[in-house]
Amino acid sequence: MKNHALLHHSLADGNFDNVMNCFKQFTVAQALITPENAATEIPRLLSTAWQQKKPVYLQLPSDICDVVIEIAPLFSAPRLPGSDANHLALAATALLKRLERAQRPMILVDQMVDRFQLLPLVLAVAQKFAIPLTNMPTAKCVIPESTPGWQGGYSGDLSSPELFEKMAQADCVLSFGVRLVDSTTGYFSQQISPLAVVDIQPYSLRLDNTSYPAVTAADLLQALLELAVGTNAVAQATLPKPQHRLAIPSDAPLDQAYFWQRISHFIQSDDVLVVENGTSGAAMGGIRMPDGVTLVNQPVWGSIGYTLPALLGTLMAAPARRHLLFIGDGSFQLTAQEVSTLLRCELKPIIFLINNEGYTIE
Amino acid sequence: MKNHALLHHSLADGNFDNVMNCFKQFTVAQALITPENAATEIPRLLSTAWQQKKPVYLQLPSDICDVVIEIAPLFSAPRLPGSDANHLALAATALLKRLERAQRPMILVDQMVDRFQLLPLVLAVAQKFAIPLTNMPTAKCVIPESTPGWQGGYSGDLSSPELFEKMAQADCVLSFGVRLVDSTTGYFSQQISPLAVVDIQPYSLRLDNTSYPAVTAADLLQALLELAVGTNAVAQATLPKPQHRLAIPSDAPLDQAYFWQRISHFIQSDDVLVVENGTSGAAMGGIRMPDGVTLVNQPVWGSIGYTLPALLGTLMAAPARRHLLFIGDGSFQLTAQEVSTLLRCELKPIIFLINNEGYTIE
Repeated sequence: MKNHALLHHSLADGNFDNVMNCFKQFTVAQALITPENAATEIPRLLSTAWQQKKPVYLQLPSDICDVVIEIAPLFSAPRLPGSDANHLALAATALLKRLERAQRPMILVDQMVDRFQLLPLVLAVAQKFAIPLTNMPTAKCVIPESTPGWQGGYSGDLSSPELFEKMAQADCVLSFGVRLVDSTTGYFSQQISPLAVVDIQPYSLRLDNTSYPAVTAADLLQALLELAVGTNAVAQATLPKPQHRLAIPSDAPLDQAYFWQRISHFIQSDDVLVVENGTSGAAMGGIRMPDGVTLVNQPVWGSIGYTLPALLGTLMAAPARRHLLFIGDGSFQLTAQEVSTLLRCELKPIIFLINNEGYTIE
Repeated sequence: MKNHALLHHSLADGNFDNVMNCFKQFTVAQALITPENAATEIPRLLSTAWQQKKPVYLQLPSDICDVVIEIAPLFSAPRLPGSDANHLALAATALLKRLERAQRPMILVDQMVDRFQLLPLVLAVAQKFAIPLTNMPTAKCVIPESTPGWQGGYSGDLSSPELFEKMAQADCVLSFGVRLVDSTTGYFSQQISPLAVVDIQPYSLRLDNTSYPAVTAADLLQALLELAVGTNAVAQATLPKPQHRLAIPSDAPLDQAYFWQRISHFIQSDDVLVVENGTSGAAMGGIRMPDGVTLVNQPVWGSIGYTLPALLGTLMAAPARRHLLFIGDGSFQLTAQEVSTLLRCELKPIIFLINNEGYTIE
């Protein structure tokens, strides 16, 4: 490679950077590993992936993958960054004051809460301050749906009218890594006052036009709970379960309403649900889930063909759980060969393959 | 997009350049189409693709694809660049002198001859100057294999010993867009004297350390033939056909030698053969093909999974011809769903799916 030889698996133009340049667009760190840099670059990439919970790209040329190098004996495992003590104290105090002043606070959760394992702290804060909770469609099932104060999922004017109104009236929204995307907000129909938003990110906080860097979300919530030791909040109610009965079988053609109502009775606690960014994802958003369900969806990038390989991934990660995939025929065809891998690995998911006689997404 | 809104089919970071940045690595021109630039950028991209015979990338945001714009009334079709008359005269004269001086000339053909439709001129030059011809594996079947003077395919020390020796001894190699890649040269085992190489590219020539820009290969060959009107070359012989008889059926396990010998008798004139960069590609390199056969392979980038969609492409392009695909089970699994598209389009290829009980390439 150093001689820019014309090798296969390249464009035969002596350029070996093109694939890395592609991955640069979709990863948070990249490195071309050499015997000289491997001892520093590999830990750097692993640390970055661990800290940011996002993918990194490591390019390992085949002519060096067997080279043996020395590494420092006290090679340490990657660690998450900590907080600055002064920033943290200021941030927690400001946040406490903000909450004490709030008349109609809300908690809005996105995937970050799952990735950074913040749920116990978020729930403790919700309980302590009696703050109602909701989640973006990208974080469906992150909050157990029997949690007192949970208001259903939020997606702009596609939310329940009560929740939509609550968000529009909120004067303090603890917003956990929230991204307001067209496909998750009913095409930007959300009504959340910008003045109300307290933007909590993994390693920083923004509150009332002030930024607090070097403050981790975990430390911030912990400090907030410690500052609020004396606070006694009113207990919140659990959202009532929808009262629809199991639909009665009939000779009428199967419709969406009937199908998803049946499915809602089929889903069990601890299931893993993999759903498309289309009919099944939208339907799942409206189903009240048992606790312990994990839902995998992809409403942001939204590529069809994603869910079947994703199912292979969830099965590999948690083979003891029951896995349900809901997929359309168009999406299925894109990556159908993963069924062969599932069979070879003797994995046993339940796949609902829905031939809707249309290639209705794209 | 101009407001950097967080849209789906993006990373929801307001950046819409990432996909184009990927395609930049593998295309020769790119444009983000806007109503203001469409009238100039679309013709620029089409011209570039046409001139260079390489892919271009046109990004058309969905919010402008219905916008109606005015275009100049005398909008002209793209044209291939021409030659500079002085450069051309100098180049043709220099090339004629070079050929007249040569004792052991050779013609080495790569894909460029096919892409730029230069074959009639190349064959005329070969005949006029009695120059033996060979081709890289990337240009298998570009020269009809009954052509007088054709020496078989060249791939370094994997070529026939006679041809390998001939190339090593050649004192003038007319090299048409040749790329010497590890996978097409027996891992760089080619022996071609750098002093012998006359590098003919689509729009330039390099000869004896002198570059001639603005000289098209077509014009150069035409001018050379006109300059050499008086030359009378000795007719060349056709390469004798290999004399192996059809193997006799037996109870012995099917082996490569038997299989490919049978296949060599099955291939007919005008067939389209699609072969893998592995067993089938290597085997085809050794088979003497009837005239009119087209062979599609990919020994440079060499990705498995390429040939089945490529077969769909060749069938769409030439539905009246017979199409044969030779594919291993590993490669087949990567893009197996294209069989569904073949069936839906009622296309009828012959597919040899070879389960070799190994995932032997990668």
